[in-house]
Amino acid sequence: LEKSLLMIPGPTPVPDEVLRELARPMINHRSSEYVALQSELVDGLRQAFQTTGDVQVFPASGTGGLEAAVVNVLSPGDRVVAAPVGAFGDRFAEIAEVFGASVRRIETRWGSCVTPEVVASVLEDEPEARALLLTQNETSTGVLNDIQQLAASARAVRPDILILVDAISGMLAADLPVDQWELDVVVAGSQKAWMVPPGLTLVSISARAWEAHATARMPRFYFDFGRMRKSMATGQTPYTPALPQLFALRAALRLIQREGLAACFARHDRLARATRAGVEAMGMRLFADRGCVSPAVTAVVPPLHLSAPELRRHVNHRHGVVLAGGQGRYQDQIFRIGHLGYVSEAEVIATLAALERGLLELGGQVTLGSAVAAAQAELLRPSGAASRSAGAGAEATRG
Amino acid sequence: LEKSLLMIPGPTPVPDEVLRELARPMINHRSSEYVALQSELVDGLRQAFQTTGDVQVFPASGTGGLEAAVVNVLSPGDRVVAAPVGAFGDRFAEIAEVFGASVRRIETRWGSCVTPEVVASVLEDEPEARALLLTQNETSTGVLNDIQQLAASARAVRPDILILVDAISGMLAADLPVDQWELDVVVAGSQKAWMVPPGLTLVSISARAWEAHATARMPRFYFDFGRMRKSMATGQTPYTPALPQLFALRAALRLIQREGLAACFARHDRLARATRAGVEAMGMRLFADRGCVSPAVTAVVPPLHLSAPELRRHVNHRHGVVLAGGQGRYQDQIFRIGHLGYVSEAEVIATLAALERGLLELGGQVTLGSAVAAAQAELLRPSGAASRSAGAGAEATRG
Repeated sequence: LEKSLLMIPGPTPVPDEVLRELARPMINHRSSEYVALQSELVDGLRQAFQTTGDVQVFPASGTGGLEAAVVNVLSPGDRVVAAPVGAFGDRFAEIAEVFGASVRRIETRWGSCVTPEVVASVLEDEPEARALLLTQNETSTGVLNDIQQLAASARAVRPDILILVDAISGMLAADLPVDQWELDVVVAGSQKAWMVPPGLTLVSISARAWEAHATARMPRFYFDFGRMRKSMATGQTPYTPALPQLFALRAALRLIQREGLAACFARHDRLARATRAGVEAMGMRLFADRGCVSPAVTAVVPPLHLSAPELRRHVNHRHGVVLAGGQGRYQDQIFRIGHLGYVSEAEVIATLAALERGLLELGGQVTLGSAVAAAQAELLRPSGAASRSAGAGAEATRG
Repeated sequence: LEKSLLMIPGPTPVPDEVLRELARPMINHRSSEYVALQSELVDGLRQAFQTTGDVQVFPASGTGGLEAAVVNVLSPGDRVVAAPVGAFGDRFAEIAEVFGASVRRIETRWGSCVTPEVVASVLEDEPEARALLLTQNETSTGVLNDIQQLAASARAVRPDILILVDAISGMLAADLPVDQWELDVVVAGSQKAWMVPPGLTLVSISARAWEAHATARMPRFYFDFGRMRKSMATGQTPYTPALPQLFALRAALRLIQREGLAACFARHDRLARATRAGVEAMGMRLFADRGCVSPAVTAVVPPLHLSAPELRRHVNHRHGVVLAGGQGRYQDQIFRIGHLGYVSEAEVIATLAALERGLLELGGQVTLGSAVAAAQAELLRPSGAASRSAGAGAEATRG
């Protein structure tokens, strides 16, 4: 008998009631039943994105959403400032380059976040920049950027710049009020905190983004916002939608609405704090700087005598806990614990306990129960003490 | 109690054992379990495409596959000959235009197919053409092109031309031996005869297509064959795959292998013949020319006194049979019966019977049982009498 815990930053575990929705029989996607489904989804997505603007759903992985963000508002030759802080930020910048943008990259050490000061100074130096590419939560390094501050500092220098945000792994794990922070295109992915399997990318589009769309000349067809808007206005889509994930998203959005966004963010913050406390109690180092730790995924540097893949394999095969590896140049140097979406306190505790046993079995120095104790102490802290994610979570760890 | 029949050309009904696969818990897409899944899928897809070349799966609708076909092998400014015979052929040509190709369209009346002679003569007139865009089965008109003849006549004039085929609704409904017919990029869609929900597009890539890919300059990222090939070589994908549909595809491919390709084509041909016989026995006209009727979908012109939407709505609401509407300029003039994928003889019979009652209720002249009788007579014909789809099926109807 095998029963394992999926503790990776996506695909995340899916609640049974959402999973069952995937197995619904097919319907005609040109029917009133579909129109009602789409309408409910749009309402729910607007609430989750905290926007009164447009939201669109594409049958694609999150990378498709990043491509959509770029090609719908830019033209070849446009100057773009990108602020990558890891593998997915690099990907976002690369997409812009592939489609002909001239990209200035703000170089940032992996594990750290971008500062508002750097963004402001680079934008002052780039009067032609049409767009700023930001990552809310960098999945590869376990870093959360402070999008509110970054957007505000960008707007202070360049009020009309297009702000495109990769929120694939961050949305619902941390607050991201799209309208309030004036974000132009924000991209999410179903397989993250949404508790839905992979297959959908979810995108919000501001009025400023629509204005840019009208003259943007990068070629696009599948991911064209205009075609999607035109179809959605009649309750349809330009091509067959991924019905199973849409059924699942409807069920998941109902769960999210019942919980409430604030509670959802607080839950992610709490599990992240517990995870970090446990990891540090075992003497392991967090890969992310203290000031910008992620509420969705924790990247961990294993003890010196162990490689990350070795520890991961051991904990997976011996203790049934599935962790994620590092990415790019950090493949062998870090491992990552996903704690976003449908993940419980019990699962975080069990994961930390599995790491305790694993470290001990692999020759490490660990007091059994120490990580679990530290995590539990975090879980017992009143949740009001740490309401917003990045800064608050970091404070909690430090305290 | 409502129990309805989904008789549209996609999404098609999904067998229970495939549907249940969609509800499997998530797995790590960077795991040996995923490597094994992908490897089985590639083997099964190669058999279905009848190719020893590369096949790739993208989390996207079929339109995404058409975009992939275009952008991976062409450069802006390339001359392309397109042979649209309906709405989806138009879309294929439009995608090429959007990405900068210079497209010569062979104009063909909706309801008819393209002839090898026309293709040959246009290609003789287009010495610069890099690619030929063909549609195997045009979903909007219920027309099957003879890809074997079209490809052969194209190669006779231009041996090195790239032949890109939209086989989204045709593959598995009609024979399409990709290697034997020397087709360079062939695009399929999961929600058609594959008996899998929408969300995947399946693409084959010939050696000639890979050669073109090396120098093709249309911008691409999400749909880039090169990135996908590189990831697949390590048992991975460049971004999170749509796991539910992949689980479902594995189960569906096992069903298809058990049936065998020849039996699968014969089954589609048999149901299509029965449908056409029934439709004509009710005095309705087939929209497609007799020589090129589709084994996957039958487009029907309703009696003069009835609009297609009116008949469709009636049969749907009163008799629980879901039919598809016309597309584009034929929206009100035709309706379409899908009989591809997981559709049984019983369902075709029930559909025809519902149409008999519907026509009678709406003031038409129908002898109850006449369509059912004609269809049953077709079903009783030895299946060897009509082995290959287009021509054979048309003969049967004529006889």
